Amino acid sequence: MGAIITLTTDFGLADAYVAAMKGVILGINPDARLVDICHTIEPQNISQAAFVLSTVCDFFPHRTIHLVVVDPGVSSRRKAVVLRTPTADFIAPDNGVLSYIIKDYASGNAIDNRQPLDTGKAEAIEITSRQYWRPTVSSTFHGRDIFAPVAAHLSLGTPLTEFGEPLDSLAVLTLLKPRQDSDGTLAGCVLHIDNFGNLITNIKRHDLPPVNTGITVEVKNELINGIVDTYDMSDGLCTLIGGSEYLEIALKDGNAGAFLNAAVGDGVKIKYSSQ
Amino acid sequence: MGAIITLTTDFGLADAYVAAMKGVILGINPDARLVDICHTIEPQNISQAAFVLSTVCDFFPHRTIHLVVVDPGVSSRRKAVVLRTPTADFIAPDNGVLSYIIKDYASGNAIDNRQPLDTGKAEAIEITSRQYWRPTVSSTFHGRDIFAPVAAHLSLGTPLTEFGEPLDSLAVLTLLKPRQDSDGTLAGCVLHIDNFGNLITNIKRHDLPPVNTGITVEVKNELINGIVDTYDMSDGLCTLIGGSEYLEIALKDGNAGAFLNAAVGDGVKIKYSSQ
Amino acid sequence: MGAIITLTTDFGLADAYVAAMKGVILGINPDARLVDICHTIEPQNISQAAFVLSTVCDFFPHRTIHLVVVDPGVSSRRKAVVLRTPTADFIAPDNGVLSYIIKDYASGNAIDNRQPLDTGKAEAIEITSRQYWRPTVSSTFHGRDIFAPVAAHLSLGTPLTEFGEPLDSLAVLTLLKPRQDSDGTLAGCVLHIDNFGNLITNIKRHDLPPVNTGITVEVKNELINGIVDTYDMSDGLCTLIGGSEYLEIALKDGNAGAFLNAAVGDGVKIKYSSQ
Repeated sequence: MGAIITLTTDFGLADAYVAAMKGVILGINPDARLVDICHTIEPQNISQAAFVLSTVCDFFPHRTIHLVVVDPGVSSRRKAVVLRTPTADFIAPDNGVLSYIIKDYASGNAIDNRQPLDTGKAEAIEITSRQYWRPTVSSTFHGRDIFAPVAAHLSLGTPLTEFGEPLDSLAVLTLLKPRQDSDGTLAGCVLHIDNFGNLITNIKRHDLPPVNTGITVEVKNELINGIVDTYDMSDGLCTLIGGSEYLEIALKDGNAGAFLNAAVGDGVKIKYSSQ
Repeated sequence: MGAIITLTTDFGLADAYVAAMKGVILGINPDARLVDICHTIEPQNISQAAFVLSTVCDFFPHRTIHLVVVDPGVSSRRKAVVLRTPTADFIAPDNGVLSYIIKDYASGNAIDNRQPLDTGKAEAIEITSRQYWRPTVSSTFHGRDIFAPVAAHLSLGTPLTEFGEPLDSLAVLTLLKPRQDSDGTLAGCVLHIDNFGNLITNIKRHDLPPVNTGITVEVKNELINGIVDTYDMSDGLCTLIGGSEYLEIALKDGNAGAFLNAAVGDGVKIKYSSQ
Repeated sequence: MGAIITLTTDFGLADAYVAAMKGVILGINPDARLVDICHTIEPQNISQAAFVLSTVCDFFPHRTIHLVVVDPGVSSRRKAVVLRTPTADFIAPDNGVLSYIIKDYASGNAIDNRQPLDTGKAEAIEITSRQYWRPTVSSTFHGRDIFAPVAAHLSLGTPLTEFGEPLDSLAVLTLLKPRQDSDGTLAGCVLHIDNFGNLITNIKRHDLPPVNTGITVEVKNELINGIVDTYDMSDGLCTLIGGSEYLEIALKDGNAGAFLNAAVGDGVKIKYSSQ
């Protein structure tokens, strides 16, 4: 079977933009297997796309190609890039949408929102070789005319270096990491609210002590005691570690986001009782 | 070509949960052909998922595998099951989401919402063999970590009995059947309202007399005379037998659901004029 | 790899109608590769479907089969047709949904909303041979019972003439073309508003002078000077030529449709300054 190419965009479901990219890919590699990740990213919301992508790429087979087109400004000064990691390839605008991926291959700290790459671990190139693009490039639809054909040629085995020049850094967003306060409180925030109204926070399992006794989670002035294993171990609001290893706040048989009137960015605090 | 695996969930379109299941399946069976049935089932609405699934599975090829993940409570006390019928396999939580499928393979009456199976006609197993699951199982995402890999292994030909122990009954919902009243009225209800606003009732073609003359349908205090063959044989509200053999109420060039302010569960009565 | 069959419908995402068509197709041609174009066409909005289809079919490989089911009235007096052009096949109700495609193969002017075809360039047939339909045809779901199986058989190489009788004309919509007024103004309208709020007009690149200096675009009482190349070359409302060669009105980092409270059909005027 042909290579897997996934697609993540903010193109929505009411236009034919996603299908145009698929048509272009299949014209170049008829064997490509196309898998939609998400096309309802809020228009131009790079951080949402970066988060959604990060929750899924580990579950795809080795050497899957992930095509991500959330591209405010389109043909502006931003670069188009391919990032090759030991497990997958990512094709995207160089605007931070790969931030969660890049941090595993970082060399040192980001400077001015550009992350130097550890080139022993991952390679990046700027897409500049027009021979792999569609002959006519619309100034407003690089997804179809540059990113899609590059993904298709990459899936056919064209060497990475054919597509352009090596890059030693990529744009990254300032990812909001939880902060350990002097009083022992861990201060995080809501990263994402999913279809069930679960609040997914930026606090991961490894940010918490191995034994979660004596923990209280505070969100929107509600206090939730302890972390449960499954949704049905609670009768109301509860916290648990979700499928992507993030701490989530859920409401049994309900929608925590609506119940709490919560939004992305809302603060979440973890407190430990004196023992 | 590889086996067909369909997917029906309440995961929505804004997260990557469906894609995570697809990634897992393709990692195990790269030849699987994935077909989405519906991912916008109302969160945790088992009866809606059961109905939607029932309208489509007959139209898929022999031995299609239907993966259904509408799973309130997730890892709670409910079982995970595979149901094998003469034509297809169904992988789902044992929570009633297969109710419409099961009734064709029933043995006797359901007891306490569990339907004994006629094991001469269909087989069921409880999914218990962890060797076919992902090595790490999230307590909140069995769709990705249990159901998806089991579907993939099943599609590769792993024998059914490898996945767990036989079950002789499955959970069923109390399906609302139309009731024949003593005055000759047939009393049913609205099961589903589709994208066009058509009200799909729980009254099937075989519940009605073969010749539909002298019939009046009452819904939301409106009386509709007769049953037409096609939408354009009426100038307003009409009733007809829809593509899944259910009696539907439609509005020509309009949306009957909005016009009637109808909801799932609303009563529908069939009356016969004296002849 | 098998033939590509695309699907465009107004079936929405909450029912299993699209999946039923896919099941039928895969039952006949297991090798078919199915690509969704759009299923959220407004119910029964033929002109929206015609436009969306027109923006994408050029980007699919040679001999792709495009299945379009936007079918008010369903089994009414309208014909079901296959249109074969030098590059693709289209299967659709004969209700104008192929209007943008047909105009490239027209012979003379349309009469009573039927466009005579130049049969040296394209062929059309009326689908009448029941042997290629499902054995039982629902009166309300020709997409599943007629269009889908015909698409599948066509994808297997069944000759076009097997499906029915030749047609020498097809139904067309009165496409709104921009009008050149006596004062030099070009008067067009909004054809479509996309997911980003971009207003896509019925004015194409070739309707405009090759050098776009001295142009003013008027829409909803706003005046926009000049046409830019990319979204980020402006600080507010701008006009540019979009990915499908239509003049678009966009708002940098915003939603022009919401900002202007615009709707499909709103007038757009192009004026040229005296030079």
